[in-house]
Amino acid sequence: MTGGVARASRNGQVSTPGSALGLHRVLEPAGVLPQAAWRLDSKPAIWPDEVRVAVQRLNLDAASFRQLHQAHDGDAAAIKAAVLEIVSSRGKMQNPVTGSGGMLTGVVDEVGPDSPLGLQVGDKIATLVSLSLTPLVITDGLARWDGKSEQVPCEGHAVLFGRSIAAKLPDDMPAELALSVMDVCGAPALTHRVVSSSPAESPTVAIIGAAGKSGSLSAAAARQAGAGRIIGVVPHEAEAQLLRQAKSSDGEHGLVDDVVIADARDPVGVSSALERAGGPADVTVVCVDVPGCEGGAILSTAQGGTVIFFSMATSFTAAALGAEGVAADVTMLVGNGYVPGHAQLAIELIRAEPGVRGIFQRRIDEHSE
Amino acid sequence: MTGGVARASRNGQVSTPGSALGLHRVLEPAGVLPQAAWRLDSKPAIWPDEVRVAVQRLNLDAASFRQLHQAHDGDAAAIKAAVLEIVSSRGKMQNPVTGSGGMLTGVVDEVGPDSPLGLQVGDKIATLVSLSLTPLVITDGLARWDGKSEQVPCEGHAVLFGRSIAAKLPDDMPAELALSVMDVCGAPALTHRVVSSSPAESPTVAIIGAAGKSGSLSAAAARQAGAGRIIGVVPHEAEAQLLRQAKSSDGEHGLVDDVVIADARDPVGVSSALERAGGPADVTVVCVDVPGCEGGAILSTAQGGTVIFFSMATSFTAAALGAEGVAADVTMLVGNGYVPGHAQLAIELIRAEPGVRGIFQRRIDEHSE
Repeated sequence: MTGGVARASRNGQVSTPGSALGLHRVLEPAGVLPQAAWRLDSKPAIWPDEVRVAVQRLNLDAASFRQLHQAHDGDAAAIKAAVLEIVSSRGKMQNPVTGSGGMLTGVVDEVGPDSPLGLQVGDKIATLVSLSLTPLVITDGLARWDGKSEQVPCEGHAVLFGRSIAAKLPDDMPAELALSVMDVCGAPALTHRVVSSSPAESPTVAIIGAAGKSGSLSAAAARQAGAGRIIGVVPHEAEAQLLRQAKSSDGEHGLVDDVVIADARDPVGVSSALERAGGPADVTVVCVDVPGCEGGAILSTAQGGTVIFFSMATSFTAAALGAEGVAADVTMLVGNGYVPGHAQLAIELIRAEPGVRGIFQRRIDEHSE
Repeated sequence: MTGGVARASRNGQVSTPGSALGLHRVLEPAGVLPQAAWRLDSKPAIWPDEVRVAVQRLNLDAASFRQLHQAHDGDAAAIKAAVLEIVSSRGKMQNPVTGSGGMLTGVVDEVGPDSPLGLQVGDKIATLVSLSLTPLVITDGLARWDGKSEQVPCEGHAVLFGRSIAAKLPDDMPAELALSVMDVCGAPALTHRVVSSSPAESPTVAIIGAAGKSGSLSAAAARQAGAGRIIGVVPHEAEAQLLRQAKSSDGEHGLVDDVVIADARDPVGVSSALERAGGPADVTVVCVDVPGCEGGAILSTAQGGTVIFFSMATSFTAAALGAEGVAADVTMLVGNGYVPGHAQLAIELIRAEPGVRGIFQRRIDEHSE
């Protein structure tokens, strides 16, 4: 903290209070957060609590790349030109249509003396805050990008604020696997916290979408946090098989204790199926990106229990009114993607749990086919 | 509970498992919850865990009445005909366009032997579950309704399920005040629970929209639950004055300890103003029905704190991504409108706190002018 006193950094710039959020980098409109800004100051000289990163790769948000691809009929040169234009005019890679960004990987180039992020020059990192709020300059004209996928090899620099989030990439696994894990690492971290503080002894945990990335990691986190019984909900037999094959590292359990096939959008169907498998759950974790799962999750949860909504397809009003409509005294959490230590916890789960790693590897292989 | 064994009620009907949710009243489509159903069975004969109510008044949801009023150009006879048509064809008053219902008041007419609601024949009650899931028959052709407001005097019957929510209307206050209190009673109940279980000693509580109905009740609930400092956020000076005039019954405090004027949609503005008033808050309660308040609430909350979103204008994704974007380790709760005992708690707060009652009375008077 700079104590509110303006001081010069080694680059001759001046820190101002509030800089932990990057407010000093906002050029227009004045006074908004970097994510809401039209244009950021992306100069390489850093404030005392900032970190500058030499960028190696951008991972564009899927929705953003899809929009660019459609708007330019898949013309790679036009897509490249569009990305360069966005970054040079806005000082960040935030698609003006979708509003979304993505993440990046790179090497730490300079660390301000007041940076709280714990990074060292030379660390290979991934940013876990969105590109939509990260000051960015591209210097190679995207010469090495084919314009055909969200993976953008690139040279340039980016800036992290005091309250940015970045994680060191582990040496013992491919970057693609690590990024895929970090992309969903908020889910296992919050699941771990909720299960370990549950008032129920050995709580029953239901994971809706347990054969997916965030679902399988959350199942492993629930086990580590002391869940007594874990029930995985999947939409069809193929996913059920995938999940049944995933073993837990303790040799005793599967990744889940029971697998239930049900349509998560059918409240009566999913809650009845869960009840037959030992439910209702003390903690229900929603990890499927399908609209309409609120009622099923609520009905599947015991009175006094907790539902964690990680799906971005969750409707706030459907959750609020759904619980009231069935007199459900359940705590409903908005799945916050940030819990301190979340990336580390998720990477450790992947190292320890071959069942989860297998699910991730399979998803990566399918995607690259 | 009927133990899953089919048994005859005194009306010769048969109970089936699952009836606490009213599934046995769903005619089409089969297998969905009553709220999602197109048509309910609204016959007067009750299942063993049901309650039948002689209806006195419907309070249509504001959005529903507005839609009907616009669709029929304010023609009272046409609006009446539309409501009668909806209720007779659907067996419930659920506006097919808005999906919303409302609530009703009436007198308990028959209580099934297995009803868990604790009601007696003759009790004057309000339903706190939506009309959109309540079996309803209108028998007076709405002869006493002028078609000009949401308040619909009416004769007929309605049915409450085992898991419905109803509250007795108190004898010591006008029905209009009691209904107005019950309409928002989930907010003070959940605020009370969160503040009293906060890990912070004498937690600081910020109420965004503190001069409104749910906001003022939540402020009083926070005080009762042990809040150390309560900061009320309002949009302009007129509301600030209203709030400053509202005293607490203990004679020592105001309803809030400090009043801050700020635009809740401006994250930097509202969090800076709160910080000057003694923030950040350990618990932030969002009670304003305006979109875009997620970021301000998150930034106004200390790390490790809790945000409760009661506004139906809350965006799930804005909350989830907003917290991640500023590395905010805050617990974010979807404001569940149901907490056991919520109506009783709110009515007792109104009885005890003249400052809150004054705010309610003023809102009611403004509305009836």
